[in-house]
Amino acid sequence: MKRLHGIFCPNPVPLDDRGEINEVELRRYIDWLIERGVHGLYPNGSTGEFTRYTVEERRRIIKIVCDQCAGRVPVLAGAAEANVKETIAACEAYHGYGATAVAIVSPFYYKLSPESVYAYFREIALNSPIDVTLYNIPMFASPIDVPTIRRLSEFERIIGIKDSSGDVAFMGRMIQAIRPHRPEFTFLTGWDVVLVPMMLIGADGGTNATSGITPELMRRMYDLAAAGRWEEAVPLQLRLIELFDAMLYSADFPEGFRAAVELRGFDFGRGRQPLSDVQSVDRLALQRVLQCILADFGVVDAPAEGCVPRTGNLERDKVVQIAEEVMLALKQRGL
Amino acid sequence: MKRLHGIFCPNPVPLDDRGEINEVELRRYIDWLIERGVHGLYPNGSTGEFTRYTVEERRRIIKIVCDQCAGRVPVLAGAAEANVKETIAACEAYHGYGATAVAIVSPFYYKLSPESVYAYFREIALNSPIDVTLYNIPMFASPIDVPTIRRLSEFERIIGIKDSSGDVAFMGRMIQAIRPHRPEFTFLTGWDVVLVPMMLIGADGGTNATSGITPELMRRMYDLAAAGRWEEAVPLQLRLIELFDAMLYSADFPEGFRAAVELRGFDFGRGRQPLSDVQSVDRLALQRVLQCILADFGVVDAPAEGCVPRTGNLERDKVVQIAEEVMLALKQRGL
Amino acid sequence: MKRLHGIFCPNPVPLDDRGEINEVELRRYIDWLIERGVHGLYPNGSTGEFTRYTVEERRRIIKIVCDQCAGRVPVLAGAAEANVKETIAACEAYHGYGATAVAIVSPFYYKLSPESVYAYFREIALNSPIDVTLYNIPMFASPIDVPTIRRLSEFERIIGIKDSSGDVAFMGRMIQAIRPHRPEFTFLTGWDVVLVPMMLIGADGGTNATSGITPELMRRMYDLAAAGRWEEAVPLQLRLIELFDAMLYSADFPEGFRAAVELRGFDFGRGRQPLSDVQSVDRLALQRVLQCILADFGVVDAPAEGCVPRTGNLERDKVVQIAEEVMLALKQRGL
Amino acid sequence: MKRLHGIFCPNPVPLDDRGEINEVELRRYIDWLIERGVHGLYPNGSTGEFTRYTVEERRRIIKIVCDQCAGRVPVLAGAAEANVKETIAACEAYHGYGATAVAIVSPFYYKLSPESVYAYFREIALNSPIDVTLYNIPMFASPIDVPTIRRLSEFERIIGIKDSSGDVAFMGRMIQAIRPHRPEFTFLTGWDVVLVPMMLIGADGGTNATSGITPELMRRMYDLAAAGRWEEAVPLQLRLIELFDAMLYSADFPEGFRAAVELRGFDFGRGRQPLSDVQSVDRLALQRVLQCILADFGVVDAPAEGCVPRTGNLERDKVVQIAEEVMLALKQRGL
Repeated sequence: MKRLHGIFCPNPVPLDDRGEINEVELRRYIDWLIERGVHGLYPNGSTGEFTRYTVEERRRIIKIVCDQCAGRVPVLAGAAEANVKETIAACEAYHGYGATAVAIVSPFYYKLSPESVYAYFREIALNSPIDVTLYNIPMFASPIDVPTIRRLSEFERIIGIKDSSGDVAFMGRMIQAIRPHRPEFTFLTGWDVVLVPMMLIGADGGTNATSGITPELMRRMYDLAAAGRWEEAVPLQLRLIELFDAMLYSADFPEGFRAAVELRGFDFGRGRQPLSDVQSVDRLALQRVLQCILADFGVVDAPAEGCVPRTGNLERDKVVQIAEEVMLALKQRGL
Repeated sequence: MKRLHGIFCPNPVPLDDRGEINEVELRRYIDWLIERGVHGLYPNGSTGEFTRYTVEERRRIIKIVCDQCAGRVPVLAGAAEANVKETIAACEAYHGYGATAVAIVSPFYYKLSPESVYAYFREIALNSPIDVTLYNIPMFASPIDVPTIRRLSEFERIIGIKDSSGDVAFMGRMIQAIRPHRPEFTFLTGWDVVLVPMMLIGADGGTNATSGITPELMRRMYDLAAAGRWEEAVPLQLRLIELFDAMLYSADFPEGFRAAVELRGFDFGRGRQPLSDVQSVDRLALQRVLQCILADFGVVDAPAEGCVPRTGNLERDKVVQIAEEVMLALKQRGL
Repeated sequence: MKRLHGIFCPNPVPLDDRGEINEVELRRYIDWLIERGVHGLYPNGSTGEFTRYTVEERRRIIKIVCDQCAGRVPVLAGAAEANVKETIAACEAYHGYGATAVAIVSPFYYKLSPESVYAYFREIALNSPIDVTLYNIPMFASPIDVPTIRRLSEFERIIGIKDSSGDVAFMGRMIQAIRPHRPEFTFLTGWDVVLVPMMLIGADGGTNATSGITPELMRRMYDLAAAGRWEEAVPLQLRLIELFDAMLYSADFPEGFRAAVELRGFDFGRGRQPLSDVQSVDRLALQRVLQCILADFGVVDAPAEGCVPRTGNLERDKVVQIAEEVMLALKQRGL
Repeated sequence: MKRLHGIFCPNPVPLDDRGEINEVELRRYIDWLIERGVHGLYPNGSTGEFTRYTVEERRRIIKIVCDQCAGRVPVLAGAAEANVKETIAACEAYHGYGATAVAIVSPFYYKLSPESVYAYFREIALNSPIDVTLYNIPMFASPIDVPTIRRLSEFERIIGIKDSSGDVAFMGRMIQAIRPHRPEFTFLTGWDVVLVPMMLIGADGGTNATSGITPELMRRMYDLAAAGRWEEAVPLQLRLIELFDAMLYSADFPEGFRAAVELRGFDFGRGRQPLSDVQSVDRLALQRVLQCILADFGVVDAPAEGCVPRTGNLERDKVVQIAEEVMLALKQRGL
């Protein structure tokens, strides 16, 4: 019995000036993530904006990641396509590229009933040449409820679930329903701000967007929790809320995470979803505050002009930080 | 000033035994729809399950429909793709195929803010070689709110909106915000059960899935409303609620519509979304009741075994109808 | 067969300096409403803030309204209390005061299932000495679905429903389910911005908060619709959207309506729900804009300082209107 | 610095044959709860159906509970009334009865903005003679968001919050926002199935309906978590999910809890919310299954006829359990 475990990074994808996948930067980024301790990679996740790429681009992303990983860590490849047949074709391709398993999001756009969700994954489970993890993200896709997960856990090909509901009780319900008969079934949480409580009740780790920005912090938090050092894990968990919330709620997902990763020294380019002028300005303000948050964790330098105290109200913090910078600039020019 | 108007059919797509597009049946179906009076076609809509086809298949669908239409009625081609660049490419292709305009659903999966929705459509408006209608369907995609529609209506390329919210007050708000400065802007409703009230307050028609099953009824209802014969239009509108609700709420959308269209003599084959065994049985029961509803409208024959009175509770009606048939079958066999 | 019909005003309640019911002003207001054409009164509705009064106050309100009405128009008395027994006691009291019927909101706070909603109203129907109308307001209370309304319509004591969902299709479903066997069942809409479409499909009128501010306009709109003069009713319906939205969405309901009614010459005093300082300022700004909207309808004078063009964006309109006034005031003082 | 902590029981209220408060049984029940280890009592909570009693009854409940408690444990008295003035009057009364503090639910029925929620609690904080805990239950009442809690924590009179959202990340956000400047502020969770994870990240305990049924188990779970014995606390937490879910989701809240407490030897009588015939039968079936769940915990005897294995699907379990009993009864009668 061996479950997937640890921190899987749902990596965003760097783009070049023409809006194409920046392979060089992606490879450099993958290396950086592995060196800083992620246990696995999860390309083509929601943070990876899988819906904004073409079929060919999604394949290229998996190919590059598997190739660059070169077996150093497992790769959980997001494989959802337009329909069952296309999804199975992706499973086959990713199997060929050397992925460890695939993750398949529940059908989206249409809101499907549990019976349809079951029928969809059943078909995939019967035909995939590679292990499958379910991906439940009820804010974006048809929810996978506990009885459906229970039914699907009877297929050997289905080996786990990534749940992004953030609901700790739901995690408990899944574990109670499935672990007795499938002790090797993997449970991962996609909700970074409750990783430690999720692990307390039995989750095996997480697929956390924050690990793409601060892999070292997520790794440390996982290690503390895995070692049962809760009194050290919890303060770190609580501190990470500010960072996560700033990245998640200050821009349309996942642009806040793309803005943050640039502060770690990567060039991610303009995203696929266009920004309005107002949004572009707002993104700069967000980066100023994110730099201050990250500096407090010691993973980047503080801005040259310093950081003002943060209030916990991001909108206000962005304005204050910028105002301070303007004042400083004026002062430096003797005005 | 000339607005798009009338009933645009968001046609479902027939599939063959291998699950591929059944071109012969699709062409026959398009002819049938036009002959029975639809004012236009709207391929690659939600009823057309655009998300369940590949890029190539979506293009083939538009190509077939435009070709078969041959200018008899306008074609509003659903053109949403993975990102702005791909969507513009689709716009160009559909322009080449002879589509009248494209309809582009608001970004989905991610729930975007109004500012992002604006930035997305702005980019398309600036680059599309073909007129664009916005497609608002808040139950499936990022909502397009009235201020955003107002801003977008300043692009000449954007000529109208299809709204599937079913909210008559929202339609009124849009009309008040836009008609004063863009009198030629088209407003279509995608919510079949309020077509007449929507037209009363100024909508130009609808893109209604029901028109794929009973084009003659939707056409008659439109004509009555367009002529201001409200006292005749309303009873038909009220009667159509039962049919629409049975198709919409008795199976995961749009399977109920696919089940219904088969009763009009078309072979639509198994859908792209697999059905469980339970769902397959349920689909048959639904078809029995739908046949009775359609027979009351005089567009199909009643089942040989007759129809039992309907209660308005579809679950119960399905069970009763089937029980009656079983009783009859037993009686016929002398049991 | 005689259905309740017309515009029933869900009157707000004026308070005096001590926060007590201002009986003199309430009586004056009731007279004013009747003189300006409301067909009936609906005290203790949601606009009347029934939950913010004590049992004794709710009784006093009904008593005053019935007394002041003196049979001139029917009174539909909101009678919901803490539980079935208390609600029935209120029914008895209001019957004694001379109310025409009571309106009882579905149980709130707890979100009850249809079966519980049925059991609740069944008990009341069996014990009330006065006719009962159901009150469906799903945004605030447990929804009453169509099958439940159908079941409850079998009690003679239950004579109608007031629905505040604003969903025109839902109104159609109710009418289809109930009118065939209870042609005298009354259907009223509580959603002012769709009164005309609701009447088109068969509603008997409305209980509309706007009628507390502009009874003459709601009456005129009702009369036009009742006479089938749709081409005159619709433009008025569309114009009223701005007024309704400004009152509904610019402050926590029903404070915007209380702010508006003061512009008609009544002193409503400070409401039961306290306002923060920010909210008090905002209320003044709202009143400035409301005065301009009402002046356009010719029911109040425009502000002495004039009105700036409105953009449809209430927040911006409030700011601009105030800025203009400040500029004017400065100018008048020679600054 | 001393925070409220532990398990506060939001006790349901026993009624007699006439539907009146059964004082004798209530006193016996309070003794039983204290003897079995609850740290405090929380009368007039949601489980206590405070909205279904009259003002006088709510006072009587607090009076009885305070009197019976006689200082053995703190009493947190639910004090929400129709408006600020009435609520403050209740605060004064409960202070006189000897309550330790009051708990005040956010305004309900109307969905208020954060600014209104702030204005409401501010007024109470300035006038209450007794300490106040906020009560956040977003599924039933206007949500209290983190910035509002932060602002309200500046009033000394406000000493804590009971949160029933069940959202562990939200608890983390509150703790991060408030503990630095108000270390003595109390955080209690009302979501029984995550008590242990909530305590892990810093909550002081809970107000948990389950403690009214199995006070000894909730107490044991709290003690284990408080002692940092997580590896023992977690399995108990996970096991309690089945019990909680059965009570919460199998009947309209809080009837499932009332059904369960009867199995502990108390006569709670028929509730204030009437049950339909179908619901009464269903309640009996639920009790059979609850008895089996409670028997597994060793707090009640198993039914004489034994328990069948449970599947985790409550509807099915209820049917199977009853079918088994019927079979047994038939067998016993030699049929």
